[in-house]
Amino acid sequence: MEGVLSSYPIHLLKLPSGGPSPDPAPQVRSPFGSSPRPPLPSISTHSHDPFVPQGQGGTVRRIVTLTSDFGTKDGFVGAMKGVILSLAPEASVVDITHEVPPQSVWDAAFALEASCPYFPEGTVHVAVVDPGVGGERRALIFRTGRYFLVGPDNGVFSLLLKREPPMRVVSMENRELMLPEVSNTFHGRDVFAPAAAHLVRGVPLDSFGPEVEDWVNLHLPEPEVRGDLVLGKVVHTDRFGNLVTNIKMEHLPFPPEGAVVRAGGVTTKIYPVYSSVPKGAPLALFGSGGRLEVAVREGSAHRTLEVGEGDEVIVERAR
Amino acid sequence: MEGVLSSYPIHLLKLPSGGPSPDPAPQVRSPFGSSPRPPLPSISTHSHDPFVPQGQGGTVRRIVTLTSDFGTKDGFVGAMKGVILSLAPEASVVDITHEVPPQSVWDAAFALEASCPYFPEGTVHVAVVDPGVGGERRALIFRTGRYFLVGPDNGVFSLLLKREPPMRVVSMENRELMLPEVSNTFHGRDVFAPAAAHLVRGVPLDSFGPEVEDWVNLHLPEPEVRGDLVLGKVVHTDRFGNLVTNIKMEHLPFPPEGAVVRAGGVTTKIYPVYSSVPKGAPLALFGSGGRLEVAVREGSAHRTLEVGEGDEVIVERAR
Amino acid sequence: MEGVLSSYPIHLLKLPSGGPSPDPAPQVRSPFGSSPRPPLPSISTHSHDPFVPQGQGGTVRRIVTLTSDFGTKDGFVGAMKGVILSLAPEASVVDITHEVPPQSVWDAAFALEASCPYFPEGTVHVAVVDPGVGGERRALIFRTGRYFLVGPDNGVFSLLLKREPPMRVVSMENRELMLPEVSNTFHGRDVFAPAAAHLVRGVPLDSFGPEVEDWVNLHLPEPEVRGDLVLGKVVHTDRFGNLVTNIKMEHLPFPPEGAVVRAGGVTTKIYPVYSSVPKGAPLALFGSGGRLEVAVREGSAHRTLEVGEGDEVIVERAR
Repeated sequence: MEGVLSSYPIHLLKLPSGGPSPDPAPQVRSPFGSSPRPPLPSISTHSHDPFVPQGQGGTVRRIVTLTSDFGTKDGFVGAMKGVILSLAPEASVVDITHEVPPQSVWDAAFALEASCPYFPEGTVHVAVVDPGVGGERRALIFRTGRYFLVGPDNGVFSLLLKREPPMRVVSMENRELMLPEVSNTFHGRDVFAPAAAHLVRGVPLDSFGPEVEDWVNLHLPEPEVRGDLVLGKVVHTDRFGNLVTNIKMEHLPFPPEGAVVRAGGVTTKIYPVYSSVPKGAPLALFGSGGRLEVAVREGSAHRTLEVGEGDEVIVERAR
Repeated sequence: MEGVLSSYPIHLLKLPSGGPSPDPAPQVRSPFGSSPRPPLPSISTHSHDPFVPQGQGGTVRRIVTLTSDFGTKDGFVGAMKGVILSLAPEASVVDITHEVPPQSVWDAAFALEASCPYFPEGTVHVAVVDPGVGGERRALIFRTGRYFLVGPDNGVFSLLLKREPPMRVVSMENRELMLPEVSNTFHGRDVFAPAAAHLVRGVPLDSFGPEVEDWVNLHLPEPEVRGDLVLGKVVHTDRFGNLVTNIKMEHLPFPPEGAVVRAGGVTTKIYPVYSSVPKGAPLALFGSGGRLEVAVREGSAHRTLEVGEGDEVIVERAR
Repeated sequence: MEGVLSSYPIHLLKLPSGGPSPDPAPQVRSPFGSSPRPPLPSISTHSHDPFVPQGQGGTVRRIVTLTSDFGTKDGFVGAMKGVILSLAPEASVVDITHEVPPQSVWDAAFALEASCPYFPEGTVHVAVVDPGVGGERRALIFRTGRYFLVGPDNGVFSLLLKREPPMRVVSMENRELMLPEVSNTFHGRDVFAPAAAHLVRGVPLDSFGPEVEDWVNLHLPEPEVRGDLVLGKVVHTDRFGNLVTNIKMEHLPFPPEGAVVRAGGVTTKIYPVYSSVPKGAPLALFGSGGRLEVAVREGSAHRTLEVGEGDEVIVERAR
């Protein structure tokens, strides 16, 4: 890597004069590797506190990501973006997805797990899948080692929090950090977007409300292992119709090369890549999130096998 | 709020040395409240004219929002973004929606009304739902107290203009401010995107063409009030299947607590929040845009009640 | 144009002290016209090499566009954005489309052709429609006169490369410029997004891998011209149901005013604009990409005529 980096214009590296700063956060496993840290600038190399906003006069802007079930045919998402950019003009708003099926907290949890860990330190991740809006459910801010997570207390961040354990969690109760009028149906605009903007601006976490010690946590069912038999379930169907299961490599009591996989009446093996099988043929493989997936090459396993969320997937040792 | 703000790094407030500038625009009701103004930086605190582009050397970028019926499977939206960023590299392009149903000016009008007012002063809002493209319809720029609105003269901004009355309207006729070749089918790319970019660059409004005194204005039907009976209509169905009506609080001759609502053979009441009723039950409530909506908790009123745009919704005093 | 431009705040023009720089790239036809070049700032006016990243301390940010078949219900697109913004915080990520039908390289090729040429010089265009992911297909970077194109070697850039011929093509093989762990199913995140970020950072093209001399190139079928008869095909159906053909103006051996067009049992003429015919009537016209399209005014030709990709469209001289 040194050879490559020596060709960077040196001013782009922007190392602070005091050298890389100590990172006060617990060491979280980053998808970019951690030992040594990637020598590219990130917010945490600029300051002693990665959560003090940077970019004043520079080129780095604080990122706010948005995940929701709002779809994009209405103005809901636009309203949230407008609020954020009005209160924090220096923010950079990035869409993760707004096509979470209505009220599907689980689908949002999968999208957040698959994308958030790749964002730079200091990013504010907002998730609004909020069937309980206007009711008793709390609005929370999680501060993890690398991020702020902003959303309703319904478990939407559960999968992400397994990778990014919370260091401090507060309940948003300070009305001064919400819009002047808070509706009963659209806290994305009136509560969560302003909170994200204020976090970007550097408002301290404790200004939002009291610390809380418990919150809703969703748990994926663990696969059942009986000797050489692993009984799993489809927990998510992706855009391509791939069937994502709750089975990870660590659950297999035998090497994946020696496994057969059964789902929806079909038996296949665990292959390294889609192109290991002919077009239209079923296969299993470990997907980009580390979970075993049942797929059909250049087709939809969901439609072809008529298998969906909650259905059983069995892995056993080949005989 | 003072307590919170005193914790901002002082340089972030960026108050100009002369203090907050006078705002030359008529006082428009902002969703962020107006008295006192929110003490966060906005474009109008930087300059005596909010419509002179800011951000040169700073972190604030001029925003262009895009609303269209182009969908996202083709390159239409990408082409508009490319044109804007080529002509105004300092612009920040923000998608509101591109999933307006084809040619549905009304749906676009609702999306614009719900989102545009939340954007910072100086934002350029572009709307391209343009069944008359290439024909006789004019291309207009509305300058309101806070924004520029750019789009075809077909009423697409009608609902927004009720909140943001136009101060000056011009017809885009100056070919030098369009792309060198103007197609007959894609003025989003060839006319409206360049106009937005030139506005961001500070090209004066009058350079685009002559002022006009009339334009197409769409009007929502007013609900009919007969004594204690309010006869309204569904005017919009949102992504969740909520039925948005033309009835606002001000139309009710009695308090909402004492109302019954009839739609599609179902009778319900006006509740404060979705969770006032069990999952799957119908309810009515005033939505985030101030209009009475008929909903089904965690379901679709549109599908469950088989009610859609144009259908009647009746509110009457409970007996 | 001079009159208009003289009203620009002069500091916005940001002409370098040495005047406009020589452009080392071959002269490519830009949609913004080329003689004289548009006098607005673009990356190439700042530097002797348009491919050295700009924007350090200024307002111009290097753009990365994303085109994929990932849809937006999952976290795939968000993961790519996170990787790019982590490795190149100064990048500006712009969505072209993620709704390319799964594995449809052709649809992506049309979206790229329609949008990419409108972006500023120096833009990095990433396309991930990648049925061969994890297999033998190479990952390529094309450097054209104005852009970098990053994607799998499956012809996805074929239409764009006709307008932007490649000057140099390399195969991405340097693992140090990928994420530390490269999955077998998601090179968008692990290979292509990091490559885009490194290009934005100024990593030289040759650091990525060896130059290649051949690559997959897709060819649209040419229409067949038999005297006064032009036999074409529908090659793309757009969001509005317009039927885009492989027939361009240059293929017609007679003026378009004197043509009749037959498709799906309907006969019509080539009109200048949609509004040349009544609502609901079929027509043909040359679309914004220069191809003959069969449309239904404010309707879907695809649905009304029951004509789709691969079906025949005939143009002949009117009698």
